[in-house]
Amino acid sequence: MQSTQLKINFQRLKADILALAEIGKSSDDRGIYRMAFTDADMQARAWLESRIVDGGLEYASDGAANQFGKLGASDDRPSILMGSHIDSVPAAGHLDGTLGVLTALECLRTMREAGSRTKYGLEMIAFSDEEGRFGGLLGSESLAGEITPERIHNAVDLSGVTLIDAMKAHGLNAMDALQARRSPESIRSYLELHIEQGPVLDRLGHQVGVVEHITGLFKWSIRLIGNANHAGTTPMNMRRDAFHGLAEFSGEIPRILEEHGGDNSVATIGRVDLFPGTANTVPGRVEFSLDCRDTSEEVLEALGGAFRRALSAIARRRDLMFEFDVLSQVRSVACDEMIVQTVADAAEALGLRSHRMPSGAVHDAQIMARVAPMGMIFVPSKDGRSHNPAEWTHWEDIEAGANLALQTLLKLSEAE
Amino acid sequence: MQSTQLKINFQRLKADILALAEIGKSSDDRGIYRMAFTDADMQARAWLESRIVDGGLEYASDGAANQFGKLGASDDRPSILMGSHIDSVPAAGHLDGTLGVLTALECLRTMREAGSRTKYGLEMIAFSDEEGRFGGLLGSESLAGEITPERIHNAVDLSGVTLIDAMKAHGLNAMDALQARRSPESIRSYLELHIEQGPVLDRLGHQVGVVEHITGLFKWSIRLIGNANHAGTTPMNMRRDAFHGLAEFSGEIPRILEEHGGDNSVATIGRVDLFPGTANTVPGRVEFSLDCRDTSEEVLEALGGAFRRALSAIARRRDLMFEFDVLSQVRSVACDEMIVQTVADAAEALGLRSHRMPSGAVHDAQIMARVAPMGMIFVPSKDGRSHNPAEWTHWEDIEAGANLALQTLLKLSEAE
Repeated sequence: MQSTQLKINFQRLKADILALAEIGKSSDDRGIYRMAFTDADMQARAWLESRIVDGGLEYASDGAANQFGKLGASDDRPSILMGSHIDSVPAAGHLDGTLGVLTALECLRTMREAGSRTKYGLEMIAFSDEEGRFGGLLGSESLAGEITPERIHNAVDLSGVTLIDAMKAHGLNAMDALQARRSPESIRSYLELHIEQGPVLDRLGHQVGVVEHITGLFKWSIRLIGNANHAGTTPMNMRRDAFHGLAEFSGEIPRILEEHGGDNSVATIGRVDLFPGTANTVPGRVEFSLDCRDTSEEVLEALGGAFRRALSAIARRRDLMFEFDVLSQVRSVACDEMIVQTVADAAEALGLRSHRMPSGAVHDAQIMARVAPMGMIFVPSKDGRSHNPAEWTHWEDIEAGANLALQTLLKLSEAE
Repeated sequence: MQSTQLKINFQRLKADILALAEIGKSSDDRGIYRMAFTDADMQARAWLESRIVDGGLEYASDGAANQFGKLGASDDRPSILMGSHIDSVPAAGHLDGTLGVLTALECLRTMREAGSRTKYGLEMIAFSDEEGRFGGLLGSESLAGEITPERIHNAVDLSGVTLIDAMKAHGLNAMDALQARRSPESIRSYLELHIEQGPVLDRLGHQVGVVEHITGLFKWSIRLIGNANHAGTTPMNMRRDAFHGLAEFSGEIPRILEEHGGDNSVATIGRVDLFPGTANTVPGRVEFSLDCRDTSEEVLEALGGAFRRALSAIARRRDLMFEFDVLSQVRSVACDEMIVQTVADAAEALGLRSHRMPSGAVHDAQIMARVAPMGMIFVPSKDGRSHNPAEWTHWEDIEAGANLALQTLLKLSEAE
């Protein structure tokens, strides 16, 4: 019964969140700029190291510059890992991965202070470059042993700076990431707390989300090709208007999701380019993106088939040409059932309003699932805002989420 | 009966078309570059002057650098004007306005050689900058007295060259365009032959088009504003996707044209910009153009109202904001009924397959209608191609159109 009474020190967690939010903050309220291996990121790493040490945890880092704070971890027994990342997108808010790292830190500090005796070691972790200055998920992929020399050599940011040079500037050797692999036997399980980055918990009034799956996705670039004609001289019935084909397809997406999708299927047309793209010319060609996500590989396959059939039929009917390229394809990942149940039971014991849900966004947890049983906890994002200075989670929800993480860690580590 | 037997000299017309096609021709088959007041345009003007003089016509030019070839024109009696322009868009074909100018030249040469005695004078004309290097329709607007000092001062091409400097480089004073006005009393009527720039005649197998109206148009820039969200984390029923609003509107255009439009109504969405415009974000905002044309002002007004109602309803239903700006609005112009009938009768007498139709494109004729009864003759554009090196009209159709123009001129000038 001791475990359900143990609580994190919320004021300390809040102070940490506010302190880290100052590092990389723009002077004119445009948000936080703490992209991987920038000066701000390095300053945040130094700050985190000192907080880990001050919290009485054992500090460590690996070849991928992932940072660890360990409690009772040893080579003799596997560890429970909990963490996320402290790097940010440009113009970010103060939460995102940061909340997961600082919550993990707070949980381990609390357990250390309470003298919790656990069957498994505990390690908090801050992964390098989750957000993608150099491609993203660098730290977790290195730890999972999925990094390659080619990937490291070719990694370059939007300004043309290479990963190798960016790390070298701070005395780090990017090639050391190849040594960051941890054996699966050394990891008992992985837990990550993250803001939802979507509107569901906020809209439904839930305090925490128990993640069951991280969705898979496919992203296509689609072209419909007709004929560019003069908008004044070409009668409607003599046109091969590529945009009309796209508009019809867009209108069919709800039907296709209803007929072939699951409860959490989503599909988005986010990018559209018309050619020639002038007001007085019938568009002869349109290129657009289709991003489709679901937690089930079978559902994704069925949706992909239905989209192709719809596009082919529209193209035939409208005398257009239809082509598409697969831009990316990511398999869905299931959270470990035992961890999901542990989180859900702990939420109930704490009297929290919880909601079982998928994650539609990419997380380090997706990579970690390849080497260890994985679970995730969500806290609400006000209005679903994310990657945005206006990102917000109520402090009470942060406190609830952190205590849920603590109870889950106690259970997973089989604390006495 | 003499008049229906008189024919233009087709080989001479063809030779002129081929000769002028060499002036401004790119060395690598990218088409003709004869934009107004470029060296190529000036070279073409010099060539045209010599052809006018060689043809036994009286050469003249006015303050707007419009070029004339006169036959029996005098201050005592009004003239029938026939012409078009020899300037081109970049990467143009060999016909467009050129065909109308050279056909007018050929008709007058033929009438001079035949010794036709006419009640009215005849003038062929090549208008300056129809295509718009400096805004377009410069010559016809000057002749119609609709040019202003401001317009001349502000006219500038895409490279930043002013009209004033471009004309000065060739010894011309742009301000002289203010003196180019012709009194309406001096113009009995205006006739223009042009390629259709659309697919109708080619598709229907007609040799010539008898233009009844030049369509009016409105061009709007429309914004639908919703909410930009993460494409992975935002369930379909929590989205305010601006593109879905546009797609639904696009799907309603055929219904709106059927319910509120006429036989020749057209509407085009030619430009679409999504914001933020990335594959993994639900589009929070879309800006797009709507170009709508018809020959009737009442129909255009009804269509504008129906489009606004549809957009408002879609915006309400989808919780989007709807705004629009009017980018341009051009009134439709009717061809003179007597001239239309004259052309149609002449086509019948020549045994040509003719088709009454609107012009959906802008022409100098539109401006000339403000000062004189106006008529237009179309010849087919292969596949509707226009403003394109692949622009093509069969030589037999050019011959048929030129002979129709000749018979029309003979009738309009009341040749004995």
